[in-house]
Amino acid sequence: MNLDLNNLIKENLPKQTQGKVASYIPALAEVNPNQLGVALYDLKNKEIIQAGDSDVRFAIESISKVITLLWAIKKLGMQEVFTHVGSRQTGFAFNSILNMEINKLKHPMNPFVNAGAIMTTSLIVEDKKRDPEPFAEILDFAQEICNDPDLYLDDVIYHSERRTGNLDRSLAYYMKSKNMMIAEVEPSLDTYFEQCSMMVTAKSLANLGAVLANDGIKPWDGERLISSESATYTKSLMMTTGLYNQSGTYSRLIGVPTKSGVGGGLVSAAPHEYGIGVFSPALDKEGNSVAGLALLQDIVDGLGLDIFK
Amino acid sequence: MNLDLNNLIKENLPKQTQGKVASYIPALAEVNPNQLGVALYDLKNKEIIQAGDSDVRFAIESISKVITLLWAIKKLGMQEVFTHVGSRQTGFAFNSILNMEINKLKHPMNPFVNAGAIMTTSLIVEDKKRDPEPFAEILDFAQEICNDPDLYLDDVIYHSERRTGNLDRSLAYYMKSKNMMIAEVEPSLDTYFEQCSMMVTAKSLANLGAVLANDGIKPWDGERLISSESATYTKSLMMTTGLYNQSGTYSRLIGVPTKSGVGGGLVSAAPHEYGIGVFSPALDKEGNSVAGLALLQDIVDGLGLDIFK
Amino acid sequence: MNLDLNNLIKENLPKQTQGKVASYIPALAEVNPNQLGVALYDLKNKEIIQAGDSDVRFAIESISKVITLLWAIKKLGMQEVFTHVGSRQTGFAFNSILNMEINKLKHPMNPFVNAGAIMTTSLIVEDKKRDPEPFAEILDFAQEICNDPDLYLDDVIYHSERRTGNLDRSLAYYMKSKNMMIAEVEPSLDTYFEQCSMMVTAKSLANLGAVLANDGIKPWDGERLISSESATYTKSLMMTTGLYNQSGTYSRLIGVPTKSGVGGGLVSAAPHEYGIGVFSPALDKEGNSVAGLALLQDIVDGLGLDIFK
Amino acid sequence: MNLDLNNLIKENLPKQTQGKVASYIPALAEVNPNQLGVALYDLKNKEIIQAGDSDVRFAIESISKVITLLWAIKKLGMQEVFTHVGSRQTGFAFNSILNMEINKLKHPMNPFVNAGAIMTTSLIVEDKKRDPEPFAEILDFAQEICNDPDLYLDDVIYHSERRTGNLDRSLAYYMKSKNMMIAEVEPSLDTYFEQCSMMVTAKSLANLGAVLANDGIKPWDGERLISSESATYTKSLMMTTGLYNQSGTYSRLIGVPTKSGVGGGLVSAAPHEYGIGVFSPALDKEGNSVAGLALLQDIVDGLGLDIFK
Repeated sequence: MNLDLNNLIKENLPKQTQGKVASYIPALAEVNPNQLGVALYDLKNKEIIQAGDSDVRFAIESISKVITLLWAIKKLGMQEVFTHVGSRQTGFAFNSILNMEINKLKHPMNPFVNAGAIMTTSLIVEDKKRDPEPFAEILDFAQEICNDPDLYLDDVIYHSERRTGNLDRSLAYYMKSKNMMIAEVEPSLDTYFEQCSMMVTAKSLANLGAVLANDGIKPWDGERLISSESATYTKSLMMTTGLYNQSGTYSRLIGVPTKSGVGGGLVSAAPHEYGIGVFSPALDKEGNSVAGLALLQDIVDGLGLDIFK
Repeated sequence: MNLDLNNLIKENLPKQTQGKVASYIPALAEVNPNQLGVALYDLKNKEIIQAGDSDVRFAIESISKVITLLWAIKKLGMQEVFTHVGSRQTGFAFNSILNMEINKLKHPMNPFVNAGAIMTTSLIVEDKKRDPEPFAEILDFAQEICNDPDLYLDDVIYHSERRTGNLDRSLAYYMKSKNMMIAEVEPSLDTYFEQCSMMVTAKSLANLGAVLANDGIKPWDGERLISSESATYTKSLMMTTGLYNQSGTYSRLIGVPTKSGVGGGLVSAAPHEYGIGVFSPALDKEGNSVAGLALLQDIVDGLGLDIFK
Repeated sequence: MNLDLNNLIKENLPKQTQGKVASYIPALAEVNPNQLGVALYDLKNKEIIQAGDSDVRFAIESISKVITLLWAIKKLGMQEVFTHVGSRQTGFAFNSILNMEINKLKHPMNPFVNAGAIMTTSLIVEDKKRDPEPFAEILDFAQEICNDPDLYLDDVIYHSERRTGNLDRSLAYYMKSKNMMIAEVEPSLDTYFEQCSMMVTAKSLANLGAVLANDGIKPWDGERLISSESATYTKSLMMTTGLYNQSGTYSRLIGVPTKSGVGGGLVSAAPHEYGIGVFSPALDKEGNSVAGLALLQDIVDGLGLDIFK
Repeated sequence: MNLDLNNLIKENLPKQTQGKVASYIPALAEVNPNQLGVALYDLKNKEIIQAGDSDVRFAIESISKVITLLWAIKKLGMQEVFTHVGSRQTGFAFNSILNMEINKLKHPMNPFVNAGAIMTTSLIVEDKKRDPEPFAEILDFAQEICNDPDLYLDDVIYHSERRTGNLDRSLAYYMKSKNMMIAEVEPSLDTYFEQCSMMVTAKSLANLGAVLANDGIKPWDGERLISSESATYTKSLMMTTGLYNQSGTYSRLIGVPTKSGVGGGLVSAAPHEYGIGVFSPALDKEGNSVAGLALLQDIVDGLGLDIFK
């Protein structure tokens, strides 16, 4: 490891001033923007290197879409999941219905836009419909894949998400009106808002990235958690649709499968090399962490991780 | 090389019956659909392996967008090119204006949709405006990067493309009306239709793929033709936007940077391993070669080339 | 009155076979398509002429949008209502969100598309928020303007509408997410579904049309029910947006302000001359009564009612 | 005539400061914004009343769409014209392709958006294809229907329109690519730009409006110029689509069939009462004359011309 992470933190932290923390709910709006943390899980040496605010907890938000996708595939199989959700970029914002309605699509376009993630979650909800609490198993799985038993649901964020989530409600009822939804709308949304409200650290995300980078095997105990195919496909989706409407741009500039969340998190998976977690809450206008992406780009360049190179 | 290419050709050729050759111009409509050819440039052994109809000439069509992009970057620099064209999927067909107009975009979304390719070509045309024939240097460059001195312009196809290219004309005048176009519309389109009408073989495309896979260096003579950055970025774009509206789907299923053309060609670049050229003219409804994609998937699986794995 | 209405009924009834009754809820799907009725309120002679199935009750559906618009204007004033809803055609189906989202509009485009009607209803609901049943006063007003004390809410239709109304729910939550909605979504929708489920006859609609045609004064008792401005503006809106996506076409072909509903009703208001109610439940693919529009056109031609002529 | 037109001019002229003259070509940008003129053709008294800048010449621009529509109907018949163009509002700006592409329409939506007007013109061009100058007969017809032998083509405006009309070119080639266009694109556009460049006065437009208001008969000589049906349908279209994207709003607020042009002209036809021409070049952001519409509204209110009242 020939990178001075502390120095990279110092260089990139000031870039957070170019962004703004998410403000649609109070719990996010109150987060201190002046934070930047990183954790790398080095698969060769089986060690985690950390720097900056790498143990600060923050809301996982859209990065939870990776976890529920993996869980849905594990539970229901690849085919069942991709019967209900596509693998294509929409060309619009993550919460837009435009492409689905213009093209009269029969399913949401990918699991990382909101409509697709609600669909993935609803598949889990439907599968668990005799269970009083479908979120419990998602939380268990999240703790396991993040190797983070302290990962928890933040009730304040959950209730805020639920109260303000009317655009998600609109998407879900649209899908229901077109007979796409399997489970009921409200329990699907409740579970979706719960998954978005899990509290993680950059280190948790480095572990998540490491499982993906390690072909589905947890490097810390050598046990397979998800199938190789599941890890491969999910990395591909992260590359093509992981950074909202800027996925294509960052595929070009960074070239490592990455998923972002409006809590300021980033998870990357460089196959066979590193799982990376980054946290910095100030966002660009597309919803991606400004200082986080800048730091990630430096790390990818420094370690030569671009998979297209 | 532990793949029996001849057997793979035999297995995949019958799938062409699920597709149809392009029919918008006579010269394409008359092509025999019952063809399948492949060529692999093996970077380790510096040899080309071929099978099936690998020396049959066919129209390069959209695969020319890779070549003009590389040439534009070589001539004008990365920054100049990506000032005029983006790196994002549109979410619509390759010849649709919808996303650009709905989102009031200031430039076409990527170099592999028609609007973006016309833009790339027009940058070259503008740069050559004192030259009586801007296409000549594109042809020279194509012959060099494909290591194919016999690569030529088919006049019949060119004139057909030019006569029927009214949707491209509409896109170009739209961009002109929004002050995006640098060069004049008609010479830009003429050059664009010329580049689409170059005749290649699967072998030519394997060479093109090999230069991309080899970080920009021609493996056959060890000379650098394009910059490392240019090769890397172009592979990323092929991954996220190379297969028309199904780019995301095939990123997931194939996982190797690939560009298709409605002439039935496919070019892939597996970094540091193989350049691959495929030809089979029967297309699925998105415009990608049916038997060609099936064969490519078998090869990628057989050789373990998925870059996300 | 020099029209033989019975003969016109006979001539136009067979055209119903070109259409189909609405099928999205059982109570509509079971209606006998072979019905055609008409009632004309002649303002000069202050008499009603009827023919065919003019006393058959059917679901008012979208024609209720006229009544709630008039009620909202009466209660809240013209300015308040048109602060929250526009007066323009959308260019899309009555239940589409496309134009509102593409153009990032701040309010629904007119009171006769579903989004606009939900908005109008929600203004009434909000105004009545201390009242346990906001629908009661809409029903009272409907009975008065239709001069039909037997006009009632059909519970079976209401519950079906409510159960299947997910696209309306999607529209309402979209508007809520954009801060357009004043009242809560669910009570607004409940009231909206109630108003759609009122049971009327062609005769009721002739009376409604007569009040509009008579500048807002009930011709049967000479009392003003709505303002002149309200009657005028509503007739204009019926002309430009009353027949769903075919409003422009029928403005040209019929030329009398008209509003349709998927229950098979039509209400027209020929200024100073006639209020007209028509009923025939088989619909064209835009949702307008086939035989009803044909009959209406014959009546308009026969009586010379086209206001553009 | 109980209106003091000079006083209305004085009251409404200052409103021009809320608008701006069209600036896309120099010849329009240089027009003095501080002008307001009106002419009324009173059908009962067969006299023209004028006030303000009613004899100032200005570019007819989109009002020419009324004239070519009437000419196309006269030459080719109602059915032929409405086979190639619809009667519906698009929901978007007059030069947008969005609705046509989203809804995969087979023809432009109405004769008063640019795509529809280019289509109408191309029908005339095709009909005249053996004639060296298809515009000549349009000019003749314009002079006749405007009772204005001095109405002429402004060459400077024509050449400016032609040079800057790339968005129209884009629309025309789009229609050609979808096999909608009958005539060739370039001569159709040339004729279209010519018709837009005719120079009229408020008085010319009052005469045009008077023929429409008088059921197709020229009131000045009692001869029928266009069919009754043609006059009726065209008035309907002016009502539903005549004021660009604000047609519905002004149908509600003004209630008289009206067509605007970006040269600052307005023509209205109040059936059996008045033809009205207005001129004031400063436009609102939709492209309609600000002071002109305000003056028109006062006149309509003062004379009680709203056809919905």
